[in-house]
Amino acid sequence: VVEHTVKGYDRELDTLERRIAEMGGIAEKMVVDAMDALANADTVLAHQVVAVDPRLDALQREIEDLTVMTIARRQPVAIDLRELIGAIRIAGDLERVGDLAKNIAKRTVRIGAEARVPRAIIGLKHMNEVATELLKDVLDAYAQRDEERAREVWERDVELDALEDSVFRDLLTHMMEDPRNISFCAHLLFCSKNIERIGDHATNIAETVVYLVTGQPMPPDRPRGRWDIDHIDIDAAGGDP
Amino acid sequence: VVEHTVKGYDRELDTLERRIAEMGGIAEKMVVDAMDALANADTVLAHQVVAVDPRLDALQREIEDLTVMTIARRQPVAIDLRELIGAIRIAGDLERVGDLAKNIAKRTVRIGAEARVPRAIIGLKHMNEVATELLKDVLDAYAQRDEERAREVWERDVELDALEDSVFRDLLTHMMEDPRNISFCAHLLFCSKNIERIGDHATNIAETVVYLVTGQPMPPDRPRGRWDIDHIDIDAAGGDP
Repeated sequence: VVEHTVKGYDRELDTLERRIAEMGGIAEKMVVDAMDALANADTVLAHQVVAVDPRLDALQREIEDLTVMTIARRQPVAIDLRELIGAIRIAGDLERVGDLAKNIAKRTVRIGAEARVPRAIIGLKHMNEVATELLKDVLDAYAQRDEERAREVWERDVELDALEDSVFRDLLTHMMEDPRNISFCAHLLFCSKNIERIGDHATNIAETVVYLVTGQPMPPDRPRGRWDIDHIDIDAAGGDP
Repeated sequence: VVEHTVKGYDRELDTLERRIAEMGGIAEKMVVDAMDALANADTVLAHQVVAVDPRLDALQREIEDLTVMTIARRQPVAIDLRELIGAIRIAGDLERVGDLAKNIAKRTVRIGAEARVPRAIIGLKHMNEVATELLKDVLDAYAQRDEERAREVWERDVELDALEDSVFRDLLTHMMEDPRNISFCAHLLFCSKNIERIGDHATNIAETVVYLVTGQPMPPDRPRGRWDIDHIDIDAAGGDP
């Protein structure tokens, strides 16, 4: 009977992992598609990104329910409890990554036929490539419980912050050059912030992977706070063009 | 022994509630202070807001640990499990409210002595008053397990969305009027988004209160998604000045 119970428990953990892998795949695709939609003013693709988001929400709720049921029923200790808490956290981060991609897609629809400034998007595309890479790497790190790889993602997030700062200055320059660029570039400001926050969630997941493997939280001098902190570097104060 | 255990359990729930009330008080004050700092270019107050945030993070971690320990130790069922899951969710939302207030404070420091456009802040102050009210109301609703009051907060969040839309248009107008306003107003765009997201977290807490009292999630046609969705109304597409 005990063995049966243990097997049932393993099955529950397996199901959790498969659901998280599914969420990861959907979130990654949303991030890529949202930027393609924005760059090509492709409102059809943008609507597809928006349409897929409820699936991510449903998976998150399923993972939460499964986890809570498992905790209450199995009374897990130490390492197993970490696995379960980790699953809830990662599902939460992936759900928010999907929301952020959805925001970019919605904004693409809202921008519509407004005067576009193609060269203003170049920086955002680069940011999005880095964010997609971080997300992919951290999901691999989770699948393989690879602490080193998770730490690399955690450290690389500063790249994205530096890029966002440069995109901010760039967009302001376009706005100052021609007032007709202002509305479009204002929308892009929000998109770049969304991409930066996708990186934050990849970083959160990296922290969760390290916690899963080591049982220790990341040191408090981490490059950024947990969850979706809209990061601003105070030391870079006042330097906008 | 059973009675002793039950009393210990009640004590744990009491401690959780007190910690959440403490988090709520800190978060509320941060939201008010951040806007005062922004409106008065008060960098000293801004630094105080930033300095208080780690306390909020520590409380959230304490609440998470307490909750997980309680779930593992007491194997709670149904209503008690809801209380515990609810505590984790609300602590998460309050921690993020603090982050958003901190962002506004950091941006105040970053803006520094840049050319300010005082009339551009009026709309943001109004938004912040509404957000503060929603936050205060939803914390009262939680303390009293008042479903009706929670639903009112949930429904009033659309006010904040409408205000943000109007502030967006207003800021764009200031930018177009004079390129010297662009940098300052670009920072305010992010601040207004931060305030809108504070309202989103109040809405999340309202949903959690309804779930605590009724055991039912809110209907899927809620005015906004769960967590921190950077809300954009697709139907208002393309109408920017």
